[in-house]
Amino acid sequence: MTTTIGIDIGGTKVFVVRVVDGEIAAEIRTETASEAPLTPAIFDAIRQVWSSDVAAVGAGVAGLVDPDRGLFVWGPHVAGTGIPVRTELEKELGVPAVVDNDANMAAWGELRAGAGRGYRHMLLVTLGTGIGGAVVIDEQIYAGISGFAGEWGHMLFDPGGLPCDCGKLGCWETVASGPALTRLARNHVAQNPQGSLATRLRGSVIDGESVTRAADEGDEPARSLVAQVGGAFGLGLCNLIAILDPEIIVVGGGLGSVGEALLGPARRVATDALHGGSHRRLPPIVVAQLGSRANAVGAALRAAESL
Amino acid sequence: MTTTIGIDIGGTKVFVVRVVDGEIAAEIRTETASEAPLTPAIFDAIRQVWSSDVAAVGAGVAGLVDPDRGLFVWGPHVAGTGIPVRTELEKELGVPAVVDNDANMAAWGELRAGAGRGYRHMLLVTLGTGIGGAVVIDEQIYAGISGFAGEWGHMLFDPGGLPCDCGKLGCWETVASGPALTRLARNHVAQNPQGSLATRLRGSVIDGESVTRAADEGDEPARSLVAQVGGAFGLGLCNLIAILDPEIIVVGGGLGSVGEALLGPARRVATDALHGGSHRRLPPIVVAQLGSRANAVGAALRAAESL
Repeated sequence: MTTTIGIDIGGTKVFVVRVVDGEIAAEIRTETASEAPLTPAIFDAIRQVWSSDVAAVGAGVAGLVDPDRGLFVWGPHVAGTGIPVRTELEKELGVPAVVDNDANMAAWGELRAGAGRGYRHMLLVTLGTGIGGAVVIDEQIYAGISGFAGEWGHMLFDPGGLPCDCGKLGCWETVASGPALTRLARNHVAQNPQGSLATRLRGSVIDGESVTRAADEGDEPARSLVAQVGGAFGLGLCNLIAILDPEIIVVGGGLGSVGEALLGPARRVATDALHGGSHRRLPPIVVAQLGSRANAVGAALRAAESL
Repeated sequence: MTTTIGIDIGGTKVFVVRVVDGEIAAEIRTETASEAPLTPAIFDAIRQVWSSDVAAVGAGVAGLVDPDRGLFVWGPHVAGTGIPVRTELEKELGVPAVVDNDANMAAWGELRAGAGRGYRHMLLVTLGTGIGGAVVIDEQIYAGISGFAGEWGHMLFDPGGLPCDCGKLGCWETVASGPALTRLARNHVAQNPQGSLATRLRGSVIDGESVTRAADEGDEPARSLVAQVGGAFGLGLCNLIAILDPEIIVVGGGLGSVGEALLGPARRVATDALHGGSHRRLPPIVVAQLGSRANAVGAALRAAESL
């Protein structure tokens, strides 16, 4: 029996699981200050799910991580640079630790215990505020030479297109993301103030969540906007397929969890745009199964496999 | 001492080398009919460079290849489908054979004996009539699940852009390729019939070759057109970097061999567009060293390593 701890360290939230032989035995979600990757609140959370048989811990940190040295290098959402997360965890907890970035740990979770089980070459594509992800090749995380592999949200999608948070124009995530859906919905509502979506959302915030909920409930304009974002998402996926020819694409993130209303159009667009179509098939494009637990579960599973 | 044969099988040309301990000992270039991957003319060429100590052969075939089964699957330039190239070579020549597609063999040549020596994660990007290439991860060829990895010439570059030979609009190779340079040059000459480039090329064919020669000779408009294609090339490279974070990019192909007039602008554009710029460096973007011999030399080296 192997017991390990997995820790998902985000900018303002931490999620800790204890995993026993691949199953979650305990979990805790808590707020944390973003002043450092490791805060007293994180160690408190770890102790709440701890058991005496914990053999190793794994942590997935939002941002750039050097997994070989166990360092948090830098990230836009977590403070500090060059923090020796692995060493600090090992010193404090007395067991071996593994550290990687959040997307890589989430990919590991999906590969071992989620939608990627049984696949060798998998892309995890997270679709939320932006687009991120991770590359699995031959059942190994491929992080690139600087740990930046999978930062495809900043793939150029439309030269001279919309401004991106990164300072460039026309990045993929400017047209496929929660904020892109929000922007489309606000435009639609402004232009159709008496339409079904405007009526439905009157008095509520117009954002990715409320629009996808309206689409779920069958609102036609909302479904069409979700499909439009899905199409732009699918066209970008087609680029990833042209470059990496993966065996499966697992779609995570808040907007990714919307499911068929978004992934159906994404698949249709990608199928039409696929190069060499008659000699290959579109890889399955499926929703991630572990949801917001993927990072912590993947970290716990990586910790177990490191033993 | 290890002696192997490497065979570059294109649509209308074949190039065969005999390699002894990493050095070319003999080579022959010949025309061949494109009616099949393996023609009598190819075996004639092999026999002309053959020596009694040949221990293995390798072949790089233009098109889609299944290296595990040694099959030529299909290609736009070579006739036949599902041809058992490895088996036919082994039966005819009496030594073990390895078979892969041309870009993968060329990448292997550059990795072992060219510009990629000493690197673990390398992209070979071939820039000629179109854009192709190959992915090396951890010193292994990564071919993807269908053998299509590296087909990034058909990455979407500009939605609604120029029509591509593949039937889609706005693929990367519509703006970065020999034909793209030809198109730009013809437009320039039509609009500037008294300009230096029009004067220089009067009476000669305006194509990628004549324009890059004019650029080499210092013609300013030609240099500017080459730089424009280089910029579009660099912007696409930036996407490959965002996705794969490689250690080095080796640029092959006819137009790639132009060198700094094209790669200088490509690097400048890629540096500006690189995401996470302050936490990473642009990987070296360098010209391939083996030129048109890369495929055959790589095939011979792969054959030697397979022993």
